[in-house]
Amino acid sequence: MASSESDSPTRSPQLRKDVITNRWVIFSPARAKRPSDFKSKSPANPNPNPNNHQCPFCIGHEHQCAPEIFRLPPHDPDWKIRVIENLYPAITRGVPDHDDDDHSLAQALDGVGFHDVVIESPVHSVQLGDLSPLEIGQVILAYKIRIQQIASCESIKYVQVFKNHGASAGASMSHSHSQMLALPIVPPAVSTRVESMKEYFNQTGKCGICEVNGQDLLVDASTHFLSVVPYAATFPFEIWIIPRDHSPHFHEINDEKALDLGGLLKLMLRKLSLQLDNPPFNLMIQTSPLQINVSDTSHSHWFLQIVPQLTGVGGFEIGSGCYINFVFPEDAAKVLREVNVPE
Amino acid sequence: MASSESDSPTRSPQLRKDVITNRWVIFSPARAKRPSDFKSKSPANPNPNPNNHQCPFCIGHEHQCAPEIFRLPPHDPDWKIRVIENLYPAITRGVPDHDDDDHSLAQALDGVGFHDVVIESPVHSVQLGDLSPLEIGQVILAYKIRIQQIASCESIKYVQVFKNHGASAGASMSHSHSQMLALPIVPPAVSTRVESMKEYFNQTGKCGICEVNGQDLLVDASTHFLSVVPYAATFPFEIWIIPRDHSPHFHEINDEKALDLGGLLKLMLRKLSLQLDNPPFNLMIQTSPLQINVSDTSHSHWFLQIVPQLTGVGGFEIGSGCYINFVFPEDAAKVLREVNVPE
Repeated sequence: MASSESDSPTRSPQLRKDVITNRWVIFSPARAKRPSDFKSKSPANPNPNPNNHQCPFCIGHEHQCAPEIFRLPPHDPDWKIRVIENLYPAITRGVPDHDDDDHSLAQALDGVGFHDVVIESPVHSVQLGDLSPLEIGQVILAYKIRIQQIASCESIKYVQVFKNHGASAGASMSHSHSQMLALPIVPPAVSTRVESMKEYFNQTGKCGICEVNGQDLLVDASTHFLSVVPYAATFPFEIWIIPRDHSPHFHEINDEKALDLGGLLKLMLRKLSLQLDNPPFNLMIQTSPLQINVSDTSHSHWFLQIVPQLTGVGGFEIGSGCYINFVFPEDAAKVLREVNVPE
Repeated sequence: MASSESDSPTRSPQLRKDVITNRWVIFSPARAKRPSDFKSKSPANPNPNPNNHQCPFCIGHEHQCAPEIFRLPPHDPDWKIRVIENLYPAITRGVPDHDDDDHSLAQALDGVGFHDVVIESPVHSVQLGDLSPLEIGQVILAYKIRIQQIASCESIKYVQVFKNHGASAGASMSHSHSQMLALPIVPPAVSTRVESMKEYFNQTGKCGICEVNGQDLLVDASTHFLSVVPYAATFPFEIWIIPRDHSPHFHEINDEKALDLGGLLKLMLRKLSLQLDNPPFNLMIQTSPLQINVSDTSHSHWFLQIVPQLTGVGGFEIGSGCYINFVFPEDAAKVLREVNVPE
């Protein structure tokens, strides 16, 4: 079809390896579907109830929650953000008593650490992308403050910040929130990423994230950040928001950059929502292990990852660790660049 | 509750590392749910139509399929199994022209290889677990024959055999089938597994799979195979079927062992179906790269993996590569041991 061909070039399947994640991805153009035709099959929360009297995350229901860690503004009954303990934590709350840095031979550890929840708004119907850039910046600063508190605990090796939006992306509560899981180990994907970036640095003398600048992969940019579709994106329309300045740890972010990130993150969430029909999505902060050697800071660079949930995972992916992506990154970036976000 | 406690001991969260996959898993007992209470939320194919006139995989509809590679029995119009080309392959069909064994620096390759389909039965309503041990053994031999054909092609590095049962496990056709994807690379999960097993061998002098024999993890056994819930199972009720004899490559299996495996696989599929209410599942053969050094054969050992799809994957898993499993392997193995399969 001529119209289809003019929208995007005909592409043949290609395998690409991401130098950051050390992962091979198969790019295989979808049959009979243009990149701009992708929509979510299960839009998240199409009509959230503005006043959910059962929701413990709503303002006025604080007593139904596990204990609060802090709120923003501090001590304000009219809070905007609350960081609380998870009522149903995946791990036992506490400071792990393992002080051995090398767990490579250990096969079992007590599941001890911190599993916290960040309530992003006092209002049930407000989603993260509905907040102002300043308000999203405050959510980002709440993550930072909590990581800084946890970082004082030497037996915590990594804090995974993540957000599940929509039931099929793993959210069990519709009230907008994120989670933070502080672990006594460096998780496998983080070890692999750190090793892969080190190998790239040793081969090229450069940080693999600082090198990301291809115009055809760029979606947008702000003063301090770039948003791109990664060269070997694991998932269709996956977006990475990358600090322009080299920085190993997310929690080194300052107020100005958090506000700037809030604006770019809002723009990306609105573009994804408009283009893909409010898809379920996951948002992850990919940072470095809390304790890294000075020599490792030259090749460690944090970023924020957004993954819309458009396709499932099957036996091929579980078995091989190799993913099939039906949208070439250049095509996804072009589609997202061209989404017109109303003021 | 006393009844609950007598069924399974109260357990605290624990982190376990699998020496085979090199993956940390968080075991976190489900709130208010006993291991025996788990059921599939979306049973697969509850009422498949016995005569689906639209299905190209049904006997008599062979002309609607991509070309056949072989059938069993050979050349028989009354076939039992057909191995055909995938009409919508993820990669371009052909022999990859990359003969360089080291792709570590390559960032892109043509997506060339083979993507085949194994139709497991001529009848639409028959699922893999409905077949006799002998018939399942024939499906296993069909995988073997096709891998042996592909293995003559030196630029193919790995063949991933996998089966998606049920739409939410990734199946796009309800007629029972498996897929085989022959790749010009060794996929990331396979490299990680081979490296991890090598490390274990170097530390202990033993093959990590040969060492799997814990009675509390055993589900059942046959003459040549054990079925176990792995010590650090990534997913609830995950099962591995392991050859008792050390063997690096699945495609070295002989007729007797294939028949024996057919019986044990049938038993496991029926137990999962009865216990979990016909759950969607994925089945993968985890074998070694086609070309391995003689020195690597001592620590490479193939196995078959079955993963029922009971829980989704969220931002924590995508971000960290670390999984949360709500059922301790010992509890899952006990529940599965006790499932009574009618004759």
